[in-house]
Amino acid sequence: MKIIKGGICAVREVLAAGACEDEYGIAVIVCKDSTASAVFTSNRVVAAPVKLTREALGDGKLSAIIANSGNANCFTGDHGMEDSKTMAQEVADKLLLDVDDVAIASTGIIGRKLPMNIIKPLIGKAIERLENSSKASTYAAEAIMTTDTFSKEFSVETELKNGKIVRIGGITKGSGMIAPNMGTMLSFITTDIDATPNELKSALKIAVESTFNMVVIDGDESTNDTVVLMANGSSGANIDENFQEALEYVCSQLARMIAKDGEGATKFMEVEVNGASNTKDARSAAKAVVSSSLVKTAFFGADPNWGRIIASVGYSGADMDENIISINLGSGNKTVKIVDSGVVNAHEGTRLLEDAEEIMKGKDIKITIDIGLGDGTAIAYGCDLSYDYVRINAEYST
Amino acid sequence: MKIIKGGICAVREVLAAGACEDEYGIAVIVCKDSTASAVFTSNRVVAAPVKLTREALGDGKLSAIIANSGNANCFTGDHGMEDSKTMAQEVADKLLLDVDDVAIASTGIIGRKLPMNIIKPLIGKAIERLENSSKASTYAAEAIMTTDTFSKEFSVETELKNGKIVRIGGITKGSGMIAPNMGTMLSFITTDIDATPNELKSALKIAVESTFNMVVIDGDESTNDTVVLMANGSSGANIDENFQEALEYVCSQLARMIAKDGEGATKFMEVEVNGASNTKDARSAAKAVVSSSLVKTAFFGADPNWGRIIASVGYSGADMDENIISINLGSGNKTVKIVDSGVVNAHEGTRLLEDAEEIMKGKDIKITIDIGLGDGTAIAYGCDLSYDYVRINAEYST
Repeated sequence: MKIIKGGICAVREVLAAGACEDEYGIAVIVCKDSTASAVFTSNRVVAAPVKLTREALGDGKLSAIIANSGNANCFTGDHGMEDSKTMAQEVADKLLLDVDDVAIASTGIIGRKLPMNIIKPLIGKAIERLENSSKASTYAAEAIMTTDTFSKEFSVETELKNGKIVRIGGITKGSGMIAPNMGTMLSFITTDIDATPNELKSALKIAVESTFNMVVIDGDESTNDTVVLMANGSSGANIDENFQEALEYVCSQLARMIAKDGEGATKFMEVEVNGASNTKDARSAAKAVVSSSLVKTAFFGADPNWGRIIASVGYSGADMDENIISINLGSGNKTVKIVDSGVVNAHEGTRLLEDAEEIMKGKDIKITIDIGLGDGTAIAYGCDLSYDYVRINAEYST
Repeated sequence: MKIIKGGICAVREVLAAGACEDEYGIAVIVCKDSTASAVFTSNRVVAAPVKLTREALGDGKLSAIIANSGNANCFTGDHGMEDSKTMAQEVADKLLLDVDDVAIASTGIIGRKLPMNIIKPLIGKAIERLENSSKASTYAAEAIMTTDTFSKEFSVETELKNGKIVRIGGITKGSGMIAPNMGTMLSFITTDIDATPNELKSALKIAVESTFNMVVIDGDESTNDTVVLMANGSSGANIDENFQEALEYVCSQLARMIAKDGEGATKFMEVEVNGASNTKDARSAAKAVVSSSLVKTAFFGADPNWGRIIASVGYSGADMDENIISINLGSGNKTVKIVDSGVVNAHEGTRLLEDAEEIMKGKDIKITIDIGLGDGTAIAYGCDLSYDYVRINAEYST
């Protein structure tokens, strides 16, 4: 597997474009006659575009995605459904596609009517710009940004077991994972693999569970979260384990970018749990640590506060025994074992605590927790909780 | 039922005292020959005093509580157990009690040895000061404070159905609910009711579920949380529904004080959910709203951001239908219905939104959510998320 340029346009025949005006952005992605699958928010309040895209995917086929930022089109009643339909219809008409093959995604403020007088011309503008180029992928990634501070894309090429070459590319946006007003995690992934809808569904579900679902910024879950995978089959190659591995790698890289760009984040936190009784326990423990407000503020303060890490594993619901747990902190090439099989090494005045304090000054910090009970492993991604998170979300005004 | 003065010492024959030095405080409460029950943290990492108090309560009897602040005596191994035993033994020796009748509680930093050279003399000093007075209750409440900004006590007198009069008094501390380093929720409640250990156990369990368990400051759960109820029987009256009501009232008032004094809090938030499918759903929904970082930051910013409230109910796991939910915001005498049966009233430029913005400037804000599906109700207590929460928890240094 190798990392390549191009984002979603690294895949043959995929066209992309973006167009922006004020706080609104439109991204159009065309990946004609694809099999497709998607994963959506489990929030019981669901935005109009999510409802329609779920319907559109009933036959496991898509040809395009239309996405807007600036307005979530959620809690907008019947006229919200009409507006989403109009967005899809615009794309279908202009590109001569079946409207049922167009997915829709929105991110932005909840409860306000979409300004169709701005959205419609932007869709037209984006469609005129459609092309298969690295730049086009970036424009699409930029168009879906809200409080994101950088655009997010990633692509790879991998050789399958039978020697065939396939590509996978993705763009995503995050920021507050999830800030219901200006947040929402969206991710659109393209590939040239030739797969049935069921094969894609299974591949995407597995990949999302260990990647996007392991990112926590603030624990709030959006009404609009959407991950779409489209496969246009242009490689002529079928799914195998190498494809699955490459898909998970692309998703994990996109997930890491979301965590790094969490609202107000100054530090990226990766928490690896090993030795849990099972995978479920490992995931619960890893997510509890990255979700803990106290761990997050300690990271912002560059404080190697292992007591908060232990306490969050303790309430995660995972099986654990405080007498055998070990905790490592690492950054760059440096790693220290602050707790070793239940014994605290990082006492005040020790060299080891000084090293831990040095590690905590890094921007990318890894916590490795060995629970010592079984084979369950998991990795979760998060960021610190800073003054800026409070500022961004307190100053934002309805 | 009437509110009376005296805290834990409102109950006859209860003695209390506090003594402090630097960051350490000692509270001693004597309620001789009581039946007793307690509720502890469900964190799998459990402090030494919690382990010993659980044992001491095996026979449902207590005569005294010894509590310290400044050090949680958690993750301290065998010597931690020895130190907790020594604390109980000091009290037993000086007051001629059975050591098994002394409960122990600790709050403060995790993973450091208790400084017994400070703790022991403080216990002696506190015991010398023991008395049944309103002041003594306050001293005890002050001695267990950590990042709390005010001491917390409450007491009532109520008439049972048979005309007998009983009293209930409590002290508590909170602040970070729970900051594993300088947090921990502790609450000690005394009463003169005459009850069996099983009657007390059931009464306390029911009361805690709808009060202390409905407080969320930061979602972190301590290794040391402890609520103890001691009944010395001096009223000669037995438990009935009026006692249960009074106990729940005392617990709810103490719980409200914890929420009001959450770390960095500038606003108190009470969330009442009505019309849920059942009590479990109502509690999930109410807790999701007070726990949401986005709702909490919106409150800090005095922003009537109902979209964040709806979204958190949506991911709470409670049954809900966005087309019938209603949301009221209130403060003081003012209330506005921002969402009425799925219809948004608080549009930009409306008088109603201006009123909602005015309400959000208050210090005590009540959100009432009517889910409209059933009879489930619940109230949760919380506070806003401010710069000061981040400062307190980021600047605190191991």
